[in-house]
Amino acid sequence: MASWTLQQVAQHNSSNSCWVIIQNKVYDVTDFLAEHPGGPEIILKYAGRDATSVYEPIHPPDALDKNIPQSKHLGKLEASSANLLRIEKENLRQSRDELRVEQARKQMPPLDRILSLRDMENVAKHILSHKALAYYSSAADDEITNNENARAFLRFFFQARVMRPVSHCDPSTTILGFKSSIPVFVSGAALAKLGHPEGEANITRGAFKGGIIQMVSSNASLSPNAIMDAADQSQCLFFQLYKHRNDSIAEQRVRAIEKLGYKAIFLTVDAIVPGNRERDIRSPWIVDEQENGPIYYQPGSPADFPEAGQNLFGTAGALIANDDRDMTWEKTIPWLRRVSDLPIIIKGIQCVEDAVLAAEAGVDGILLSNHGGRQLEFSLPPMEVLYLLRRQRPGVFERVEVYIDGGIRRGTDVVKAVCLGAKAVGLGRPFLYAQSAYGVDGVSKTIEILKREIITAMRLIGVSTLNELNPEMIHRIDWQPIYAKL
Amino acid sequence: MASWTLQQVAQHNSSNSCWVIIQNKVYDVTDFLAEHPGGPEIILKYAGRDATSVYEPIHPPDALDKNIPQSKHLGKLEASSANLLRIEKENLRQSRDELRVEQARKQMPPLDRILSLRDMENVAKHILSHKALAYYSSAADDEITNNENARAFLRFFFQARVMRPVSHCDPSTTILGFKSSIPVFVSGAALAKLGHPEGEANITRGAFKGGIIQMVSSNASLSPNAIMDAADQSQCLFFQLYKHRNDSIAEQRVRAIEKLGYKAIFLTVDAIVPGNRERDIRSPWIVDEQENGPIYYQPGSPADFPEAGQNLFGTAGALIANDDRDMTWEKTIPWLRRVSDLPIIIKGIQCVEDAVLAAEAGVDGILLSNHGGRQLEFSLPPMEVLYLLRRQRPGVFERVEVYIDGGIRRGTDVVKAVCLGAKAVGLGRPFLYAQSAYGVDGVSKTIEILKREIITAMRLIGVSTLNELNPEMIHRIDWQPIYAKL
Amino acid sequence: MASWTLQQVAQHNSSNSCWVIIQNKVYDVTDFLAEHPGGPEIILKYAGRDATSVYEPIHPPDALDKNIPQSKHLGKLEASSANLLRIEKENLRQSRDELRVEQARKQMPPLDRILSLRDMENVAKHILSHKALAYYSSAADDEITNNENARAFLRFFFQARVMRPVSHCDPSTTILGFKSSIPVFVSGAALAKLGHPEGEANITRGAFKGGIIQMVSSNASLSPNAIMDAADQSQCLFFQLYKHRNDSIAEQRVRAIEKLGYKAIFLTVDAIVPGNRERDIRSPWIVDEQENGPIYYQPGSPADFPEAGQNLFGTAGALIANDDRDMTWEKTIPWLRRVSDLPIIIKGIQCVEDAVLAAEAGVDGILLSNHGGRQLEFSLPPMEVLYLLRRQRPGVFERVEVYIDGGIRRGTDVVKAVCLGAKAVGLGRPFLYAQSAYGVDGVSKTIEILKREIITAMRLIGVSTLNELNPEMIHRIDWQPIYAKL
Amino acid sequence: MASWTLQQVAQHNSSNSCWVIIQNKVYDVTDFLAEHPGGPEIILKYAGRDATSVYEPIHPPDALDKNIPQSKHLGKLEASSANLLRIEKENLRQSRDELRVEQARKQMPPLDRILSLRDMENVAKHILSHKALAYYSSAADDEITNNENARAFLRFFFQARVMRPVSHCDPSTTILGFKSSIPVFVSGAALAKLGHPEGEANITRGAFKGGIIQMVSSNASLSPNAIMDAADQSQCLFFQLYKHRNDSIAEQRVRAIEKLGYKAIFLTVDAIVPGNRERDIRSPWIVDEQENGPIYYQPGSPADFPEAGQNLFGTAGALIANDDRDMTWEKTIPWLRRVSDLPIIIKGIQCVEDAVLAAEAGVDGILLSNHGGRQLEFSLPPMEVLYLLRRQRPGVFERVEVYIDGGIRRGTDVVKAVCLGAKAVGLGRPFLYAQSAYGVDGVSKTIEILKREIITAMRLIGVSTLNELNPEMIHRIDWQPIYAKL
Repeated sequence: MASWTLQQVAQHNSSNSCWVIIQNKVYDVTDFLAEHPGGPEIILKYAGRDATSVYEPIHPPDALDKNIPQSKHLGKLEASSANLLRIEKENLRQSRDELRVEQARKQMPPLDRILSLRDMENVAKHILSHKALAYYSSAADDEITNNENARAFLRFFFQARVMRPVSHCDPSTTILGFKSSIPVFVSGAALAKLGHPEGEANITRGAFKGGIIQMVSSNASLSPNAIMDAADQSQCLFFQLYKHRNDSIAEQRVRAIEKLGYKAIFLTVDAIVPGNRERDIRSPWIVDEQENGPIYYQPGSPADFPEAGQNLFGTAGALIANDDRDMTWEKTIPWLRRVSDLPIIIKGIQCVEDAVLAAEAGVDGILLSNHGGRQLEFSLPPMEVLYLLRRQRPGVFERVEVYIDGGIRRGTDVVKAVCLGAKAVGLGRPFLYAQSAYGVDGVSKTIEILKREIITAMRLIGVSTLNELNPEMIHRIDWQPIYAKL
Repeated sequence: MASWTLQQVAQHNSSNSCWVIIQNKVYDVTDFLAEHPGGPEIILKYAGRDATSVYEPIHPPDALDKNIPQSKHLGKLEASSANLLRIEKENLRQSRDELRVEQARKQMPPLDRILSLRDMENVAKHILSHKALAYYSSAADDEITNNENARAFLRFFFQARVMRPVSHCDPSTTILGFKSSIPVFVSGAALAKLGHPEGEANITRGAFKGGIIQMVSSNASLSPNAIMDAADQSQCLFFQLYKHRNDSIAEQRVRAIEKLGYKAIFLTVDAIVPGNRERDIRSPWIVDEQENGPIYYQPGSPADFPEAGQNLFGTAGALIANDDRDMTWEKTIPWLRRVSDLPIIIKGIQCVEDAVLAAEAGVDGILLSNHGGRQLEFSLPPMEVLYLLRRQRPGVFERVEVYIDGGIRRGTDVVKAVCLGAKAVGLGRPFLYAQSAYGVDGVSKTIEILKREIITAMRLIGVSTLNELNPEMIHRIDWQPIYAKL
Repeated sequence: MASWTLQQVAQHNSSNSCWVIIQNKVYDVTDFLAEHPGGPEIILKYAGRDATSVYEPIHPPDALDKNIPQSKHLGKLEASSANLLRIEKENLRQSRDELRVEQARKQMPPLDRILSLRDMENVAKHILSHKALAYYSSAADDEITNNENARAFLRFFFQARVMRPVSHCDPSTTILGFKSSIPVFVSGAALAKLGHPEGEANITRGAFKGGIIQMVSSNASLSPNAIMDAADQSQCLFFQLYKHRNDSIAEQRVRAIEKLGYKAIFLTVDAIVPGNRERDIRSPWIVDEQENGPIYYQPGSPADFPEAGQNLFGTAGALIANDDRDMTWEKTIPWLRRVSDLPIIIKGIQCVEDAVLAAEAGVDGILLSNHGGRQLEFSLPPMEVLYLLRRQRPGVFERVEVYIDGGIRRGTDVVKAVCLGAKAVGLGRPFLYAQSAYGVDGVSKTIEILKREIITAMRLIGVSTLNELNPEMIHRIDWQPIYAKL
Repeated sequence: MASWTLQQVAQHNSSNSCWVIIQNKVYDVTDFLAEHPGGPEIILKYAGRDATSVYEPIHPPDALDKNIPQSKHLGKLEASSANLLRIEKENLRQSRDELRVEQARKQMPPLDRILSLRDMENVAKHILSHKALAYYSSAADDEITNNENARAFLRFFFQARVMRPVSHCDPSTTILGFKSSIPVFVSGAALAKLGHPEGEANITRGAFKGGIIQMVSSNASLSPNAIMDAADQSQCLFFQLYKHRNDSIAEQRVRAIEKLGYKAIFLTVDAIVPGNRERDIRSPWIVDEQENGPIYYQPGSPADFPEAGQNLFGTAGALIANDDRDMTWEKTIPWLRRVSDLPIIIKGIQCVEDAVLAAEAGVDGILLSNHGGRQLEFSLPPMEVLYLLRRQRPGVFERVEVYIDGGIRRGTDVVKAVCLGAKAVGLGRPFLYAQSAYGVDGVSKTIEILKREIITAMRLIGVSTLNELNPEMIHRIDWQPIYAKL
C-alpha cells in the first residue's frame, strides 16, 4: 500500500484532481465530487488537505468504503506527515466555541440532579457545540410548528378517577408485538456523533438498559451494522428508512437491514425534500463571526449573486438529496412488501385522510409525525391529529397500531396520547440531548424519568395498566394554559 | 434513667447500630430505619449525632413516643455533653439562607398594610426559609395545574344586579351543620412548623378568632391532640385523613380522632402516591449550593448510577409512604362508616363521574380538589369541575354538600364558587403563609380580608345573603383576561 | 367677627374640642367628627392645626357652609398668625413627590404633539401627584375589570363598506334631545381639583368648546353651582346623582340641581358601597415611605390589631358613606319621578336582565357601566353587555336610550358602540387626565382628537352619518388581538 | 434663460412671493401654494431657499413640469451661487440620523446571508432614515390591524398529504392572463425613493428578474413613464389608481396609463381619506428632538391652539388630498369602463358583502386588502375575509379573480391563501425594504426566497401544481400559536 506526504496530497487541491486525508488515509474523491449529497463545494474546501475533523461526526465509518471505490483508496499518509498532522492538531488554537464547550463540560451537574427531560435539555444546550445544537434543535421556518407540537399537549387535561386500586401499576406494553417497558420508543434521531463521540451506540445501549426499542435512522452517524453491534442479542431495533430514488439501491438497503436483524421498517414520508431550517443554515456563519468577526456586504462580490453555490438546506439537505420524491400508496407499499417481510410503518402521517389511506394500504402501523416540526411549517401537531383521528375515524385504531412523536417531554404527555389510542409515542431530540451530555447513562436516565412520571400519572388517574386508559379520561379545553418554561 | 456522652452516642453511627439525639434525649433507631417513611438514608446522615434541628419542624412532638418503643428511649444526654451541644449550636455559623431570613423578618410591613392575600403571600415569600417556601409553594411537574387552578376563576364574570336592598348583608353559612362566619374553611395544610415555631396552633387560634372551621391534616407538624388543645372549647375542627394501608392502624387513628372531638373526616383520595414536586426536591440542593458552591458531574461517581438511594419524592413522599393505595368505593366507605359516626367527606374528587359515584356511595360531602396542583399535573381545575358538575349533574348538589379548594385568593373567587353551588371553599397555602409571617394575627387578618371582600362582592352583585347567589349571576367567558399579578 | 391666634387654636386638638383652620378661617368641628363621611381620624390628625392643603382638593368650596353650622364658624385667624402660617408654608420643604411633579410640569410636550388620548394619559401620569394618579387610575382588586373594559373593544372588528359617498361626514347626534357634536359625553369624573386647581370647571369650559355634554358628579370637587357658573348659558349639563340614604336630603339635592339648570339625572346604582381600590388605599403609605423611609412590623403595636381605625375604602369610601344602599325599582324610580321632572337615566346597569327591568321601570335611558372597573371586580365589560343586549333583547334600544362607558380611548371604540346601538358613550378618566395636564385646552383637545378619529373611522367604514352605522358592520372575533400598548 | 443669485431668490420668502430652488433651478410657486396637496406650510418653510433635499425623495421627477406652468420656471441658479450651494451642502453637518444611516449601510450583511423576508426587513430597519422607516412601517392608530394581518395566518394549519409525486413542482400561475413565476405580485408600494435613490425602478427591474408582476402606485416617487422605461419590453405592469375627484383629470391619467402600456387598473377604494398613522406623523418631531433636544409646553404659545395649521395626516394625507371620496358602484365602475379597456380590479375590499357587490358590478378581480393596516384600524385581516368569503360565498371565486394582500411574509402564507382560493397575493412593504437595502438585487432575492419557500411548502403538502391546492388542505384552529418573532 502506497504512502504519501502532505506535500504530495496538497497538489491535488482542485476539482480536476481532488484528494483528501481522512484519519491518515488518502482518498481520491475527484469522481465522487458530483455525487456528494452535500454538494461538491464543501469537499473542495478541504481539497489537498486533512478533512477528518469535519468528516467524522456526520458520516458513518463505513461511508468511505461504500462510496469510494477501492481503487481510489490511495493508501496511507507517510509516518512523518502523519506525525506533523498530529502536532499541528495539538497546537491548533481552539475556537471560542470549542473553549466554551470544554468549559461547560467541566461544569455539568451530577446525573442525580437531573429531574426532568427539560433539565437534561438544559445541560445539553450548554455543552453542545453551536453547530450540533443548531442541527438538533432547529426546525422549519420560524419554528412555530415545533413549538406547537409541545403546546398541543397543554390543551388536554385529565378527568382523573379516584378510589381505584393502584398499588400495583404496570406501564409496560408491546409495540408490533415486541415488549417495551413503557409506551415509549426512540424516534429516529440522526447524527448523534455531533454530540458525543460514541454517537447512536449510546442510545442503543441506554435503550437496552431501560427496556425500550430504538428506531435507527438511515442518517445515523454510525452504520446500521455498528449500531446492531452495540445492541444486546435480545434487543429489538427498528429501522427508519429514507427510501433512495433508485428502487434497486433502496432494495439492497432494505434487504441488508432485514438481514442485520432489524425488526420493522418505518418508511419516512414527510421528508422527501429538506425543510427550511434557518437556525441550522445560519450556524456556520455564526461560529465564523464569533471567531473572525462579522463580514459585510460588498456590492459586486460573488455573494451578491443570490444563491450562487450556496447550501440552503443545511445538514438536512445533504442527507436526503437522493431520496424518492415520487412515492405513492399504489406503488411504494407493494414494492416494500415485495422486498421485505418486516412490518411496515408509515412515519409522517399528518392528517386523518392519510391515516385512513395508510390503513387501507395494509401497513402495520402509522406514526403521526411532522418530523419534529423540522419539515413543513404549519403542519398540524401530531397530538392534534391523534385527537381528530380518534373523533373522526376511530376505526383506524383497530386496523393499525398508531404512534405519535413530536413535543413529548413529560410522562403526562405520554399518558394523554395513550388515552386517545396511541399504542406508543416516540421521542427524538431528548435522547440526542441525553447522550450528548451523559452518554449511555443519560439515555437510561431519560427512560427512568419517563417511567417514573408515567407510573405516577397512571396511579393518580386511577389505572394500574395502560389498557385501562381511555378517551373519557381526557377533557379537551379551549383555553390555553400558561406554561412559563415552554 | 441512663445518661450518655456525645462520644458514646457517636459510636453508634451506622445501620448496624444507629443512635440519634433529639432534644438532649438519646434514641436507638436501628430497628426503625427500615420503617422510616422518608427512607433510612436521611436518618443515617445523622447517625451518632444530634438531629434536633432537622427533626423538629416536620414531625409532631409525639412522633417519637408513637414510633420508637420505650425500650429504645435510651435516656438523656449527660449534662456536660448537653452543654457542649448548646454551645456548639450557639457558635454555629448561620447559613446564608438563615441570615437572609433573619434580615427579612426584621423588615416585614405592619399588619395593617396587608390589603390582600397576595400581599400576605409576598411577605411570606421573603421571610420563609428556602426549604419551607419550596415545600409550601411547590406543585407537580411544571406547576401548570397550580397556575390553572387560580386562572380558572378568571373565566367567570358576574352578571351583577342593581337596585336591590343590601344595607344588611350576611356572609355566614353552615358547613355540615356547623356555623361558619364566611363560606370558607382552612383546607388541610401540613407542616406549619416549617414556617413558624407554633405551627398549626396559629391557624387553630386564628380560625377561632375569625369564626371559621379548620380542617387539620394527618401530616400536621403538631399532633391532633396538640391542635385540639389550642382550640377553644366551642370550636369546630375537621380532620383530613390519610388512610394507613393497614386497616387496623387506620381504625385506631380514626377512633382517636373522633374521641378527641374532631367533627368530620375528610378522606384524602388524590394523594395515594406522592406528586412530582421538583421545586421541593431541588430545594436542599439549592441551599447547599448557596452555602458550599456548585458540585459537578464526576463520571463513575455514585451519583452517576441514577436514582441510587435518592429521595425523589421530596417531603411529600415521606409523609404518605404508608398510605392506602387500594381504596375503593365498595370497600373503603363502608369500612369508614363502620369505625366512625362522623360525617364523611371525600377530598380530591376531580371529575363529574366521581362526584356522582361519591353521592351514590352515600358520603356527606365532596371536596372538589386536585390537592392544590401538587399531585396530578393536568388534573382539571376544581372551579372547572364545579362548573361542569353544575351543568351536567346539578342533582349532586342536592345529595351532598359540595366544596372546592385550589387557587382561591379573593372574595370574588369565593362568591363565584358559591354562585355555582359550592357550600364553602377551602384555602390552604394562604393560611400557611399568613401564620408563617404573622402567627395567629396573620391568620385572623386573612379571614378578615376575605370577609370584607366577600361582603363587598355580595353587595355589588345585589344580594344580602349567600343563598340568593345562583348560577344565573355567573357569565362564563371564552376569552382569557389578562392578570398581570398572576 | 372674632379672630384667633395659632396658639389658641392649638389648644383644641382632641375629640373633646376639635378646631381646624381652613384658609385662615377657624372652625369648631367637634360635633361634626362623628358625621364626617371619611371618618373622624383623618380630621383629628389636623386638630388644632391648619388643614387647608389636604382639605381643599377634595371638597367643594361650599362644603363647610353646608356641613358646619354658622355658630361653629368661629371667625378668622388673627393677622400675624395668618402671616406666620404663610411664611411656614413658604418655607415648607417640598416633598419628593411635589418636587417630582414640579419638575415634570416643566417638561410637558406642547399640546400639538398630543396625538391620542393615550398620549394625553401618559403626560398626566408624569405630572400628577402620586395621590391624584392613584385616585384617578385605581380600580377594584387586581384591576382586571378595568383592563377588560378596554380589551373588550379589541374583539370587535369592522366589516367596512367601500364605494359609498363620504366626502360629507357628520358625526353629530343628540342625547336625550340635546345636541352633541360627537356621540360622546363626559361621564361623571370626580375630584378634578386633585389634578388641577380649577378642577371640574376646566371640563365644563372644554366641553363647551368641543360641543359635548358634561355629566357632573355629586362628588365633584366644585359645587354644582360653581360648575354651572363656569358653563355657557346655552350649555347643557347632566347631573350624576349619588342618592343620599335620607330621602328628604336626597330630594333637596335633586330639587336644587333641577333649579340650577341641570338637564338630566344619572342615578348611580353601581356604587352603593365603595369598591376595593388598593392602589388608592396604598397611595398615602407609598408617599410617606418615599419621604420618611419604610416602617416595619412591631409585634404588639396598634397596627397589629387588624383594621383598627383604618380607612380601608380610600377616597371613594368617604365620598359615598351616606349613600342609599337599599334602592329598588319599585320604590326609588317613582320617588325620583315625583321629586323631579328631569329625564332619569340609570347609571351602572351591568347585565341584560337589569337593562330590561330599567326599560320596564320607564326610565329615559340606561348607562351600561361598571364604574370604570372601580367597583365590582369581574363585572362584565360594558361593551360586552351592550353586545349581549343587542343579541338577546334588541327591543330595549327602542324603549330607552342606551349609553356605555368604560375603556373607551379611540374613535373606533366609539363607532363600534354606536354600531351596536349605543346612542352615545361616556369617558371619565381621559377628561380628568386632560384637564390635569393642560386645563381647558387639554379637554377641548381631547374632544378634537376623538372627533377626528370618529370622522376618519366613519368615512373608512363608508358612512356619512351616525344612523347609517348598524350591527352588520361589526364582526365579533374569537381570537384576542395583541395590543402592545394596553 | 435667466439665471439668479441666492440673494435674489432669498427675497421671495413669503406667501406674497414664494420662490424655491430645486436642483439649481428656480421656481415661482406663489400661486401653487394653495393647491399643494401637502398644504402651504411645508413649502413656505423653504421659501427663498433650496428645497432639493426634501423635495426629491417624495416627488416624481416630472411633478414640477406637470404642476408648475412653464411661465413660473424662472430659470437656473447663477453658476457661483450654484457652487456656493454645493459647498454648503458638502460642509453641512450630517444629522445624527444621517450619521447612523451611513454607519449602518457600511455594516449590512452580504445578500447570501439573507434567508427570509424578515431578515431583509431587519436589515432595512437599520439602514433606513427614521423618516423613511416611519413612513414604510407605520399603520393606523395603534397598529393593531397591521399586526393582526400577519397573525391571521397563524390560525391556519395544513392538512399535508403524503405519498404523492412531487419531484416535479411548478409554482407558476397567471394573473388576469399574464404569466407569473409564483402566485405573488408587488402590491402598490409608494415613495420608494425614500429608501433608495433609484426608487421604484429597483422593484421594476427586480420583478422582471424574478418573473413577477409589479402593480405601480399612483403615488410612486417615479413617474409612470419612468417606471415603464425601467421595465423590460416583455414585462407586464399593473397600475394602482387613486382616482382624482375631478373626473376629467382622472380620465386623462387613466388614458395616459393605458397608453404607456400598463395592463390593468387596480382602483384603490380603501384610502379615500388618510389613515391616522401616528408613527409617521411623529417622525419629524423625533428626528428634530434627536438633533436639537426636546421642546416643552409654553402656555399661550401657538402650539396651544390645537391643530392650528398642523399636518395631522403625515405623508399619506398629502398624497391623497385630491382623491375622489364619493365613488359608487353605480357611477364609478361604468365611468372607468368607458374611459379604459383595461381589466378593472377593486383594491381594498374588506368584507364579504362588498366582494359580492364587486362581482355583480362586473369587475375583473378584487383585491381583499385593508391597505396594510394603514387605513381603518380594526378592519378585518384580509386572510380572515378570504376565509369568510370561501365559506359564505364560494361562487364569487368563479366570477372574479380574488387576491389578497397584508401580512404575507412566508411561502406558507402564500400557499394558505391559494388553498382558500386566492389566485395570487400581493406584498408591499417587503419590496420597499428589499430595494432600500440592496436595490434591484434585494428585490430579486426576495422573489427567490418566496419561490423556494413556496416550492418547499407545495412539495411537503403533496402537490406539484398550484391548482391541486384546495380548501380541504387547510385546518383552521381556534388556539393562537406563539410566534416569538412577530
